[in-house]
Amino acid sequence: MKKVVTIGGGTGSFTLLSGLKKYPIELSAIVSMADDGGSTGILRDELGVLPPGDVRQCLVALSDTPDRLRELMNYRFAEGGLEGHSFGNIFLSALEKITGDFGTGVEEAAKILNVRGTVVPVTLSNTRLYMELSDGSLLSGEHEINVSSRFETVGVKKVRLRPRPKANPLALKKIREADLIIIGPGNHYCAILPNLLVPGIAEALRATKAKIVYNCNLISKRGQTDLFTLEDYVREVNRYIGQPRIDYVTYNTSKPAPELLKKYQKEGLLVSFTNEGERPYRVIRADLLSRTKTLRRKEDKIAHTRAFIRHDPEKLAHVLMMLLELEGYENIVKDIV
Amino acid sequence: MKKVVTIGGGTGSFTLLSGLKKYPIELSAIVSMADDGGSTGILRDELGVLPPGDVRQCLVALSDTPDRLRELMNYRFAEGGLEGHSFGNIFLSALEKITGDFGTGVEEAAKILNVRGTVVPVTLSNTRLYMELSDGSLLSGEHEINVSSRFETVGVKKVRLRPRPKANPLALKKIREADLIIIGPGNHYCAILPNLLVPGIAEALRATKAKIVYNCNLISKRGQTDLFTLEDYVREVNRYIGQPRIDYVTYNTSKPAPELLKKYQKEGLLVSFTNEGERPYRVIRADLLSRTKTLRRKEDKIAHTRAFIRHDPEKLAHVLMMLLELEGYENIVKDIV
Repeated sequence: MKKVVTIGGGTGSFTLLSGLKKYPIELSAIVSMADDGGSTGILRDELGVLPPGDVRQCLVALSDTPDRLRELMNYRFAEGGLEGHSFGNIFLSALEKITGDFGTGVEEAAKILNVRGTVVPVTLSNTRLYMELSDGSLLSGEHEINVSSRFETVGVKKVRLRPRPKANPLALKKIREADLIIIGPGNHYCAILPNLLVPGIAEALRATKAKIVYNCNLISKRGQTDLFTLEDYVREVNRYIGQPRIDYVTYNTSKPAPELLKKYQKEGLLVSFTNEGERPYRVIRADLLSRTKTLRRKEDKIAHTRAFIRHDPEKLAHVLMMLLELEGYENIVKDIV
Repeated sequence: MKKVVTIGGGTGSFTLLSGLKKYPIELSAIVSMADDGGSTGILRDELGVLPPGDVRQCLVALSDTPDRLRELMNYRFAEGGLEGHSFGNIFLSALEKITGDFGTGVEEAAKILNVRGTVVPVTLSNTRLYMELSDGSLLSGEHEINVSSRFETVGVKKVRLRPRPKANPLALKKIREADLIIIGPGNHYCAILPNLLVPGIAEALRATKAKIVYNCNLISKRGQTDLFTLEDYVREVNRYIGQPRIDYVTYNTSKPAPELLKKYQKEGLLVSFTNEGERPYRVIRADLLSRTKTLRRKEDKIAHTRAFIRHDPEKLAHVLMMLLELEGYENIVKDIV
């Protein structure tokens, strides 16, 4: 079976993995470990555990259990001392406490949830994300970065993880042995880059013989990446990998409904791509847009904002599987340029 | 298969069910629903859920899953906002919230935990235990009753549940159809009587054709039942049933180690039984004592005190199964008087 590795975190990985899990591939999901907001942040601070939130979403995406158990894992308490906590986060933190380390806890969780594939925390070190702005000021922690709107005006100099984490050896092994590596979709600074910042991961990506695809986000996050074109995203990701390593980029060509676009103008803009000039990667243009409306629940109030303009798991997986040179997947692609 | 119903709650039921589950019987555990202390009390107050603690212990006892999941269900958080909470209680409360009622939540939990048999909350009404003392004063709630030492001197007039709960129809059905009903072991006022106080349960016990066995506690709780002999316990249980309905009583004849007895003098005394006079039930005397030391964990500090002098699950089940007239179970019984 072909070995497919995804790199990301949070909702983006959830969407991607939900689509990919239906294919006969050996799937591994490498997950960023820098979240420190909401339920995850509280558990980190109070229990001294590693951040469970992103891992939870990947486990649920790959879980082959009755819907009730998956629903339970995403349930958020709405009252009392548990308010805002995701049940699945509490579940992972308890398993970390019982087993004594997060990696083993994730393995046990995967057994209980009957997970197909492997969920691999990119690091098992306790680390935090910092963002240095062009004026020399510093944003500390993923949550502060996520809620800040300062870098729109000031500009980002660089992001880093401190203390320096150690890469999970399993993540390095999975990258080394992969046939296809899929980066994104996901929040650029808070889900994608925190993987590439872990020492050893970029080296492994440079060395692997796998094809690397980058799923460009559909919208740019206002105040963070709002002037980014597709080329800007790819350039940034390649910069953190250390060389132009991306082979393919997927790009959505389908227009969201006007009312959604209007709603989104406050939060971000569609990523633009103009097919001009030379580039060291190919762009796969296709309809990748989800037409499902996702409602936000009352229990989600501590969670990050959920995207309404998002990838369709089936369409995205369909296009990606084409790159494994399996038959019959070209029909929904507009073109490859 | 013979139908066996247990009536109790908490650690007593856990012990009993752990032994019984190995036998080829159709097992149902009716569980008291009056707990309002510790983790359970906090969840009741903050989330408005029904008390999960006793049900959790029965589910874990009957669960046929890897040890890790059972360990997880009993895990208690030791720090932060989750301090003292049992993971399994949070699990049941989340399922109650998702499914919209406690009964369905327990059914879903039983599926996830691969439970053999049925765990039946005695009521699905939100109710509280009250104890009226002989001087007219009132103790409100199981937790207050449990920690009080006033009734040693004052004396108990009666216990009741308010508001008046409605019996779970499934509990009534199980009692009606049973071949053998096993009451106890368990805390007399806080685990046993709160079942018999639910309107309809006593009537069902009077009407059923099942044999009824009462597992007399090994020790009496200081300040609550410390002058109780075996006869006193049986008389009280029969009084709440409304007629002398108990057919058999099990009584432990084995002496605990002297250091345990010494330790226990602060908390209670061994229940005495002198084989004198007429009585409308038979007493099965046997070695029923556990020789396993159970250590108390740091995480247990909000939990009730665990008994060190306790029944051995295998010995107890062995003797009880004898009453189903299955072969080969008489050998460990000292005598039946």
